[in-house]
Amino acid sequence: MTRKYDAIIVGGGVIGSSIAYHMAARGLKVALLERERLGGQASSAAAGMLGAQAEISEPGPLFELSRRSRSLFPELAIRLRELSGIDIGLERKGLLRVATTEQEMNSLLHTIEFQRGAGEQADWLSGNEVRRLEPGLSPDILGAMLAEGDGHVLAPELSLAFAKAAAVLGADIREYSEVQSLVLEQGAVSGVRTRDGTLYGERVVMAAGTWSGPLLAQAGLACPIYPVQGECFSVLSHAPLVKATIFGHGCYLVPKKGGRLIVGATMNEHSYDRKVTAGGIGGLLAAAIRLLPGIAAAEWESAWSGLRPQTADGLPFIGGHQDLLHVYVAAGHYRNGILLSPITGQLAADWAEGKAAEGDYLEAFRLDRPLPKTERVNQDEFAH
Amino acid sequence: MTRKYDAIIVGGGVIGSSIAYHMAARGLKVALLERERLGGQASSAAAGMLGAQAEISEPGPLFELSRRSRSLFPELAIRLRELSGIDIGLERKGLLRVATTEQEMNSLLHTIEFQRGAGEQADWLSGNEVRRLEPGLSPDILGAMLAEGDGHVLAPELSLAFAKAAAVLGADIREYSEVQSLVLEQGAVSGVRTRDGTLYGERVVMAAGTWSGPLLAQAGLACPIYPVQGECFSVLSHAPLVKATIFGHGCYLVPKKGGRLIVGATMNEHSYDRKVTAGGIGGLLAAAIRLLPGIAAAEWESAWSGLRPQTADGLPFIGGHQDLLHVYVAAGHYRNGILLSPITGQLAADWAEGKAAEGDYLEAFRLDRPLPKTERVNQDEFAH
Amino acid sequence: MTRKYDAIIVGGGVIGSSIAYHMAARGLKVALLERERLGGQASSAAAGMLGAQAEISEPGPLFELSRRSRSLFPELAIRLRELSGIDIGLERKGLLRVATTEQEMNSLLHTIEFQRGAGEQADWLSGNEVRRLEPGLSPDILGAMLAEGDGHVLAPELSLAFAKAAAVLGADIREYSEVQSLVLEQGAVSGVRTRDGTLYGERVVMAAGTWSGPLLAQAGLACPIYPVQGECFSVLSHAPLVKATIFGHGCYLVPKKGGRLIVGATMNEHSYDRKVTAGGIGGLLAAAIRLLPGIAAAEWESAWSGLRPQTADGLPFIGGHQDLLHVYVAAGHYRNGILLSPITGQLAADWAEGKAAEGDYLEAFRLDRPLPKTERVNQDEFAH
Amino acid sequence: MTRKYDAIIVGGGVIGSSIAYHMAARGLKVALLERERLGGQASSAAAGMLGAQAEISEPGPLFELSRRSRSLFPELAIRLRELSGIDIGLERKGLLRVATTEQEMNSLLHTIEFQRGAGEQADWLSGNEVRRLEPGLSPDILGAMLAEGDGHVLAPELSLAFAKAAAVLGADIREYSEVQSLVLEQGAVSGVRTRDGTLYGERVVMAAGTWSGPLLAQAGLACPIYPVQGECFSVLSHAPLVKATIFGHGCYLVPKKGGRLIVGATMNEHSYDRKVTAGGIGGLLAAAIRLLPGIAAAEWESAWSGLRPQTADGLPFIGGHQDLLHVYVAAGHYRNGILLSPITGQLAADWAEGKAAEGDYLEAFRLDRPLPKTERVNQDEFAH
Repeated sequence: MTRKYDAIIVGGGVIGSSIAYHMAARGLKVALLERERLGGQASSAAAGMLGAQAEISEPGPLFELSRRSRSLFPELAIRLRELSGIDIGLERKGLLRVATTEQEMNSLLHTIEFQRGAGEQADWLSGNEVRRLEPGLSPDILGAMLAEGDGHVLAPELSLAFAKAAAVLGADIREYSEVQSLVLEQGAVSGVRTRDGTLYGERVVMAAGTWSGPLLAQAGLACPIYPVQGECFSVLSHAPLVKATIFGHGCYLVPKKGGRLIVGATMNEHSYDRKVTAGGIGGLLAAAIRLLPGIAAAEWESAWSGLRPQTADGLPFIGGHQDLLHVYVAAGHYRNGILLSPITGQLAADWAEGKAAEGDYLEAFRLDRPLPKTERVNQDEFAH
Repeated sequence: MTRKYDAIIVGGGVIGSSIAYHMAARGLKVALLERERLGGQASSAAAGMLGAQAEISEPGPLFELSRRSRSLFPELAIRLRELSGIDIGLERKGLLRVATTEQEMNSLLHTIEFQRGAGEQADWLSGNEVRRLEPGLSPDILGAMLAEGDGHVLAPELSLAFAKAAAVLGADIREYSEVQSLVLEQGAVSGVRTRDGTLYGERVVMAAGTWSGPLLAQAGLACPIYPVQGECFSVLSHAPLVKATIFGHGCYLVPKKGGRLIVGATMNEHSYDRKVTAGGIGGLLAAAIRLLPGIAAAEWESAWSGLRPQTADGLPFIGGHQDLLHVYVAAGHYRNGILLSPITGQLAADWAEGKAAEGDYLEAFRLDRPLPKTERVNQDEFAH
Repeated sequence: MTRKYDAIIVGGGVIGSSIAYHMAARGLKVALLERERLGGQASSAAAGMLGAQAEISEPGPLFELSRRSRSLFPELAIRLRELSGIDIGLERKGLLRVATTEQEMNSLLHTIEFQRGAGEQADWLSGNEVRRLEPGLSPDILGAMLAEGDGHVLAPELSLAFAKAAAVLGADIREYSEVQSLVLEQGAVSGVRTRDGTLYGERVVMAAGTWSGPLLAQAGLACPIYPVQGECFSVLSHAPLVKATIFGHGCYLVPKKGGRLIVGATMNEHSYDRKVTAGGIGGLLAAAIRLLPGIAAAEWESAWSGLRPQTADGLPFIGGHQDLLHVYVAAGHYRNGILLSPITGQLAADWAEGKAAEGDYLEAFRLDRPLPKTERVNQDEFAH
Repeated sequence: MTRKYDAIIVGGGVIGSSIAYHMAARGLKVALLERERLGGQASSAAAGMLGAQAEISEPGPLFELSRRSRSLFPELAIRLRELSGIDIGLERKGLLRVATTEQEMNSLLHTIEFQRGAGEQADWLSGNEVRRLEPGLSPDILGAMLAEGDGHVLAPELSLAFAKAAAVLGADIREYSEVQSLVLEQGAVSGVRTRDGTLYGERVVMAAGTWSGPLLAQAGLACPIYPVQGECFSVLSHAPLVKATIFGHGCYLVPKKGGRLIVGATMNEHSYDRKVTAGGIGGLLAAAIRLLPGIAAAEWESAWSGLRPQTADGLPFIGGHQDLLHVYVAAGHYRNGILLSPITGQLAADWAEGKAAEGDYLEAFRLDRPLPKTERVNQDEFAH
């Protein structure tokens, strides 16, 4: 129980697993500790959208981080398939963000302008053009932003593929291993105390989503993260109901392999309760049927929920701590955990190797940045 | 494979299992053949209402059969618990059939009158009286018929308890045993051919729901039965949301053990498709929230469906065949299979023992009765 | 979040749920906090044996506590069924503890003697007598102790029934509510801090199994509890394979409703890992087939495991704390949690009402008793 | 219900789905009818071995058919992923067929000789060479045949991918559609009668595994197929326990994505019962632990079974009928259904297009070939 690792990673979700994979790929000896099962929380509840353009409507560091991370997926998909046998289901068939009011249309036109200025493809399609691409969509749609670069992956598969690929590369994966506190020695973190015993390592990475905050607070570090519960459901059809990902009013639709369609998501702030409610499902169902009437005939599959880890300014915490040595935090990715997992893994591995982080925009994710008093949900004005 | 039974029963749903139980309890040597798993079809999809009064709004043979069958449950529950260990969850906390329009109110007042005339308790409650009993119900409710004698059981448990109690009493239960045809000898049935081989018996009972028709047709017997698919879902809460069974507009609510509430049911005629549709669930959810607004906060559990076996005049086929000897049919119970299973089992066992059926009303269920050309759903005018 | 309760109970397993039920039944206003789902851990993994005589081979306080608790079940079963609708599956068809060696036989004869001395029924049956009762058992069995008073319940149902009955009686049940620390004020506990906020109460009861230790340790209280993982599996047959509970060499067999048979259990000390291993199942299967050869033809159902909370002297901690006021501990019940849940609930409710505990034997469960340095498993010499 | 198809395919397993895919890819209008769910029977129970060399120890038509079909997988995997989004998990990491006795060794050396003569790679590895490749394997292994060309796919995914790709290409997929008889007109088949109604088509393909025989028998065609039940289980580990597929004494091991390992399979002839037995699992577990001791520590996942469709001479029926026009049979693929599905689909599509089948070896699969009186299991002398 006292074996020494190059890095101990706390949290077996998509962020922690990506960090384990990236570190193991660079030859580091890592332990990945998960208190229940790998990917058992928010990571496997996600719809897996890679919405670098669709989810972010203004320039800034989150946009930079997102599009850089998105560009890492094609190579990653191949490598993870080779190592773990798991296909992460990467699809890049574009994303349509639809408008049903003039206000939404104007907002999208503004977003298109900013994204083109940033060098990304983004186009406005009229209602008829939208329905030519996706004949099942509602006649009420006035038009849509088409972001061809956005896509999606299978979130549970991505999370597991990172962890299993890390295991193949030598990482020590420990499930049912609950961290109770950090081991502090002379202003540095040197290990973690679990229910089974103490593990020592050169570095500790906190990647436990909403669980990260309390563990860090015990060590006197403030990284406040709060949960926003999201409920989803899925339906099945033989031929796909839509080809692109559709981002609409009150719901989004993500087409998965074999005719599966995920519909998400509600946003219940500050709830740690993971129960799916009848009302939540009822609301999503009504919104989905308005957007895509044919979904009413599709086969009901199942409903689930997850807790997205949110921060007061809507940005994740990514970085080493300025006061306490040898600890790195990667948490609070909110709705962007799947999208941001590759770059977060890279950044953490760079830190472990002592490489300086490139890019001024990363300053925005520092742990000691000033946070607003009033929490906000990083939520688009009309999507939900 | 050529062992000789007193009776071979085709169909391991609630009807066939009840018949196996009642025959085994009288010392007969029976085989119960089920092509898949016991209770795997309509029987375990049912909400388990014992709605002798709530489901039937006019006098007649179905009402007679229903209330006689209902009266058998209390003793049956005790006996099945003793033999099989299974509690069938009998609850007799009454049933409220609510009205939200004057038309529905008048129709219910008419039903109350007929039931009182038949010697059953049935009362009209005002909207306020209804909400005093069930505070969670909608303020839109004008009033309700209260039938204190109606109740419910756990449908899957009842079906299994019959079969397992029969096994304890010596019945030979065979799952994955698919009957392909009846063995006919000199104007009588003497066995069944399954995929595994042929079984011989003194009598054969057809209790295979919608599967009964084609098997009988092969033997030249016309017992036309068609499916009406019903979709349901369930929610969970710690304390029950309602105490009584509630029969409303577009849905009914049946409170089960441990705070579970079953909401049913759609009616899709002539569909053999057992898939639950998103639209079906959406419609039920909306109706349930209108009837009982607090259900929106309850935990979503799951959705399922079953195929109810319906006939052209809405009455089951129960009886021996007039031309072909040694064959008995018990099928087409539609929405009343759970309620009618005890008396159907008794009647079939009486037949096997050579006892004459008592009661003129039983004539209505004869196999050779004239059937209307146009099929009908035995459906109440306003409940769905 | 600052509502004041008469008692806050931490842990929604069978012990915490029983305490909530007993307190609510006496009119106290209680909150039951569970970090995941009710009964999700050891309580629903248990086989539900009420082995007051079979599990305990020597006189002492655990025997006293066990037989008193066992006597509470018949009335409890009725009351819980009324309140929650849940049948706890109480069966009192006796327990056979079999011997296959002379040494085991002598040990059992010794146990029989002690139990008779204590006023309990216990008989020695020869091998032939055993097989007359249970014809399926192995011819290798030399004989068995028959304890007619022992029996079993459905463990998951008992745990849920306590909680749901408590909810009906007004208890506030909170799932996904993870307690992070106790609120201490002037030498007394006045509440708990959860991830959602702080709850205040007159009293706090710690009933969180293996999770209790670390929470208490934060408050400076030593109640060391360690896990012993147990793996089980179940099979199905139409008619039951055995009538009595069978306690044999390397496994035990507990017959459940509908022909289900639970086979348990391995004992892996100090493992927090809840994974079922292939080797664990292989060993249990081999032992079960030796004991009851006909089980080989039964249908495989599923396998699972749970973590039993064990203490250094094999006795649970039950009692208020001598130094810190208003806190009560009920944890460490090891393999006897189901059996001891009724009396533990009663004792905690007595404490909350200020009643003095009756019985000197209760001293043995005090929190400040001296504990041996070397941990032991409270394990019979030959059963496992 | 009277729509006319180019072809109606009966049976939604891997064979029927492959035929639907291949026909739809050639522009034919097809209906695929499945009585329950797609891939719900043997196809999703298979371990997915592509054992063209490992399963077949002598030259002949089955070997020819197998290696031709195996060569189709790489391109197929890419095409199915594009169309359906489903990765069929093709792995070609070789297959080791191990020997633990001299007799087995000699038999394998004979097989190697024949396969080399046929132009396939096949090598003998000593025990030490085997353990260098797969360090976890038992020290009792004397040596093994290594067939590098063999591999495996995910059987449920392959079956679904065929059907879903067919749907994308326009095929009409109908689940819960049970065919009751063929429509015969003037010596030709012109459609099928289902429970819902009659469908007409230019051609009918029977691909319903063990269900094919009775349907064909109704039309006077003898294609006797009988079931051989196979039980399997799976375990999980983070890093894979073996890299190659291992074919041993009493079991085989097939490593799947993410550290999953499938262990198969028992062979229970003439059983239509799909229940997994405790004894079947116990035997497989013991064999697997002997072959790969480290499996004992792996996590138990689940057990299942399927019915493999076998014929009297161990060869499938593939071909049009000589007397009855417009009907094609593709059934009885026994343990090779996954492996043979691509070529069977091609052959059926060739037939539908009126192309003559190439290759004399195909004569061996004709429907009117003489069959031995005594049935045999196409079983290797020592593998099971």
